[in-house]
Amino acid sequence: MAGAKNNAILLIVSPDKPGLVSAVSEFVYNHDGNIVDSDQHTDLETGTFLMRLEWEMGGFQLDRASLARELAPLAKKYRMDYSLHFSDRRSRMAILVSKYQHCLYDLLVRHTLGEIDVDIPLILSNHPDLREVAEHFGIPFHVVPVAAESKDKAEAEQLQLLREHQVDLVVLARYMQVLSPAFVAAYPNAIINIHHSFLPAFIGGKPYHQAYARGVKLIGATSHYVTAELDNGPIIEQSVARVTHRDRVEDLIRKGRDQEKIALAYAVRMHVERRVLTYNNKTVVFE
Amino acid sequence: MAGAKNNAILLIVSPDKPGLVSAVSEFVYNHDGNIVDSDQHTDLETGTFLMRLEWEMGGFQLDRASLARELAPLAKKYRMDYSLHFSDRRSRMAILVSKYQHCLYDLLVRHTLGEIDVDIPLILSNHPDLREVAEHFGIPFHVVPVAAESKDKAEAEQLQLLREHQVDLVVLARYMQVLSPAFVAAYPNAIINIHHSFLPAFIGGKPYHQAYARGVKLIGATSHYVTAELDNGPIIEQSVARVTHRDRVEDLIRKGRDQEKIALAYAVRMHVERRVLTYNNKTVVFE
Amino acid sequence: MAGAKNNAILLIVSPDKPGLVSAVSEFVYNHDGNIVDSDQHTDLETGTFLMRLEWEMGGFQLDRASLARELAPLAKKYRMDYSLHFSDRRSRMAILVSKYQHCLYDLLVRHTLGEIDVDIPLILSNHPDLREVAEHFGIPFHVVPVAAESKDKAEAEQLQLLREHQVDLVVLARYMQVLSPAFVAAYPNAIINIHHSFLPAFIGGKPYHQAYARGVKLIGATSHYVTAELDNGPIIEQSVARVTHRDRVEDLIRKGRDQEKIALAYAVRMHVERRVLTYNNKTVVFE
Amino acid sequence: MAGAKNNAILLIVSPDKPGLVSAVSEFVYNHDGNIVDSDQHTDLETGTFLMRLEWEMGGFQLDRASLARELAPLAKKYRMDYSLHFSDRRSRMAILVSKYQHCLYDLLVRHTLGEIDVDIPLILSNHPDLREVAEHFGIPFHVVPVAAESKDKAEAEQLQLLREHQVDLVVLARYMQVLSPAFVAAYPNAIINIHHSFLPAFIGGKPYHQAYARGVKLIGATSHYVTAELDNGPIIEQSVARVTHRDRVEDLIRKGRDQEKIALAYAVRMHVERRVLTYNNKTVVFE
Repeated sequence: MAGAKNNAILLIVSPDKPGLVSAVSEFVYNHDGNIVDSDQHTDLETGTFLMRLEWEMGGFQLDRASLARELAPLAKKYRMDYSLHFSDRRSRMAILVSKYQHCLYDLLVRHTLGEIDVDIPLILSNHPDLREVAEHFGIPFHVVPVAAESKDKAEAEQLQLLREHQVDLVVLARYMQVLSPAFVAAYPNAIINIHHSFLPAFIGGKPYHQAYARGVKLIGATSHYVTAELDNGPIIEQSVARVTHRDRVEDLIRKGRDQEKIALAYAVRMHVERRVLTYNNKTVVFE
Repeated sequence: MAGAKNNAILLIVSPDKPGLVSAVSEFVYNHDGNIVDSDQHTDLETGTFLMRLEWEMGGFQLDRASLARELAPLAKKYRMDYSLHFSDRRSRMAILVSKYQHCLYDLLVRHTLGEIDVDIPLILSNHPDLREVAEHFGIPFHVVPVAAESKDKAEAEQLQLLREHQVDLVVLARYMQVLSPAFVAAYPNAIINIHHSFLPAFIGGKPYHQAYARGVKLIGATSHYVTAELDNGPIIEQSVARVTHRDRVEDLIRKGRDQEKIALAYAVRMHVERRVLTYNNKTVVFE
Repeated sequence: MAGAKNNAILLIVSPDKPGLVSAVSEFVYNHDGNIVDSDQHTDLETGTFLMRLEWEMGGFQLDRASLARELAPLAKKYRMDYSLHFSDRRSRMAILVSKYQHCLYDLLVRHTLGEIDVDIPLILSNHPDLREVAEHFGIPFHVVPVAAESKDKAEAEQLQLLREHQVDLVVLARYMQVLSPAFVAAYPNAIINIHHSFLPAFIGGKPYHQAYARGVKLIGATSHYVTAELDNGPIIEQSVARVTHRDRVEDLIRKGRDQEKIALAYAVRMHVERRVLTYNNKTVVFE
Repeated sequence: MAGAKNNAILLIVSPDKPGLVSAVSEFVYNHDGNIVDSDQHTDLETGTFLMRLEWEMGGFQLDRASLARELAPLAKKYRMDYSLHFSDRRSRMAILVSKYQHCLYDLLVRHTLGEIDVDIPLILSNHPDLREVAEHFGIPFHVVPVAAESKDKAEAEQLQLLREHQVDLVVLARYMQVLSPAFVAAYPNAIINIHHSFLPAFIGGKPYHQAYARGVKLIGATSHYVTAELDNGPIIEQSVARVTHRDRVEDLIRKGRDQEKIALAYAVRMHVERRVLTYNNKTVVFE
């Protein structure tokens, strides 16, 4: 498990430039860093270079502050957009739910099993229904009712709670409210939603009903970062299941739940392991 | 293989009514028909009943003409929309192509292997490029150029050729022309197209480019009956493949070819085995 | 949901004989039964006919006792091996577990959501670890320790508990003990196990370690009925996931958990909806 | 397409040692090589490091001979087992077939479409049946009959033909003869076979019959390098398809053909793009 170790993870998005890989590898090696994982991708069309580099901090000659300081000139030289993470500093994840319980249970069981290595300081809901689930797993549960006429106030309260708990990742586990652009802006590339269709098919409400009406032979689920434009953020993962004429809408919903759980859990795990980079409204997932 | 035998296949779409199954089974049994396959489906929402019944004509007491005559009152009583097929009367399938060869090869190899039990009296193209492929498999190849200003005339010529060869199934194997409503009307539920996306995502032109731009993690192909409305006919089959950030548009096209072949070949096989029924712009596929 | 209705379900395994379908359909129709689902299969190789027929008891002219009585001569005539079920008489399912919690949670959440329409009178374990999970879902939890030297006694106690609770389906949700032939004989075709490999590959212990050592590119899970021969009972469902060289044994275990959950839950749902028939150490699943 | 460019590809298998990545990247960069693709993997269990590095030879300061010479000391220092390839030097691939045509057609159509960037100097068969297929694609076809009593002589003739045509990759496209250890030894990690089961299930002959008898719900195909031990070489790719009780052996064979084609073509493409490394009887596929 990533979190058990003391590793540094460097994520880079930059213009593609010769010597970059060599310079970064050398930087780590020269300070006695043992690289345990390295992934890179070049998008030739846009000339974008993306990299994820993970090395052990045990034995590394720089402490965290020095590392940040010494990395800066290199980053500047190559015009890197970069971030630095440490595997012993876990993500603090909030889960937002309404009444659907399958994704919530799924995330919490995976958390219990160590599949998702995060702290979960709170679960937030606009309904009280899932309190017992949260309590069973020992996670504080907060209810903030959301009504159309007081949504701003509700969001302010939600954001206040997230800040208080130092949340850096928000997971919408079938949360049935659309977040305002202001809320979204507070967590850029840090709100993960699960949409219950194979996007961009069936954007918006009741996608299983739409899928049934169209007579598709596969249904899907899509996990993505939330952006201001509904259901249009960078896609992290998609998952599909076969359906037949025998499946009514309620069967699509049932089969879809499994796809939702899988696509959401995968996205969350990839995110917290710092394996997802975004550019151009797309993701690169260094699995 | 279905065609090797002398079986009758009865396809029924009717209002759901008690006694229908019993009446039809009894009819076949009373004339000493041995039922070898029976499938049915009830769409409770619309009250529609669909059935496929296959029995051996060897030993059956009625010849084909008598069968049709004696079935009529039963069909009337239950207000059946029905059709009767005989497995020794093979479909006569025309393939329409342009320049892409993967689906054409795929269909012809499957035909050679006996997977698709039809006669193929001709291959029609708006380009001469694939003549050698047709000739290798011993199928007559006709070129009818299609230009925007003379499309009506071209279609008239195509339809004339199809009629001459008594074609009852038209397969568009990546044929790059849109058929006119008049052409489509000549072959209701008997023109199968392969669209290179997971419909209804990416309707229209260049779906792989659209998919690349959106950053999806799965691409797909959809085989469907052609109706007057572009890419909106009853879906017969859909197939998907995973893609990653490493896949450029040309990789999507390459990966997509496999899905196109699979989804198209499956649809054709199901159609010629009389396993596809349509209602409500959807299909029931009795696999 | 099947259980919400009052339907009769007739399962038949018999020698293939003309007139059987007609006779059964007529029997139901003549007593005013409205058939809502009918599936059949003929195994031509062994001359075996299998059928599942479901009709509404509301409006049916026979009560349950009379139905059983009147069906008997028909069954005798066609030498049917048959069973009769009523959808308002739910299966009583016991879950046996050890320490792994993923399958247990999965089954209990699906039960909560109504996906698996059964009563669960008890959960049995050879360890106390999962008591809290059972309690959270309000299911009685019994611990019967199993040691090599006293296995007979432990099994006697388990069987006694199952009888007391009138259990008719036993689900081994990663239960880590091999059941004795005597135990198995008490529940023929009524004990469902999940084996964590794509059987018949990797029979026996530590299949994920075996899979890792062999360097396979797909791992799987298999749900099956338990018979006296280990890992060799009739297969109900199999599910696979891709793995790569990046996946260590612990990753196979993690990825495998999802497949185990899916293959087990599917098998249980099919069983309790009376959609699984067995013959010749195989299953027919009328999905 | 890889072959269109003039790239160098370096494949490394070595003991894991700090500084290796940095040293190799630096080596390429210092000679003005532009790295276009880099993949690496560390097997922590065995302490094995594997890497694939691809860079442009255009602008690179060393010619091929100098490159090989200057790389040697670096390779020695890190005890690398390595090989150097150039994308404009295509693999020379021989296809061995018997009577099955689906894999042969599949490979040749993909070759025509540019999916598999190789030269195919000959097709070898123990039967004359597929001569016309070879001729249609313009590939020389040689028949070398193989009888039990004269297998040595036949293999000597085959090897002679392969040498004459400077073949460096042998693909067994459902070739129905077992190669002798001596033949296998002539092409280490350069003979790719397609086995028609999900190995290690159903090793040996008639795997579809074995699968049917066992009642599995998924069938598969496995492409692997051939080693002296039958069906036990390093697995490159596996592919599966769902089957049901409705599928007879001939249906498994039909469905399996698609999986065979896909798993074989993928393995061949990965091999010729130098994306497959082997160690410990396993493969690493840098997709």
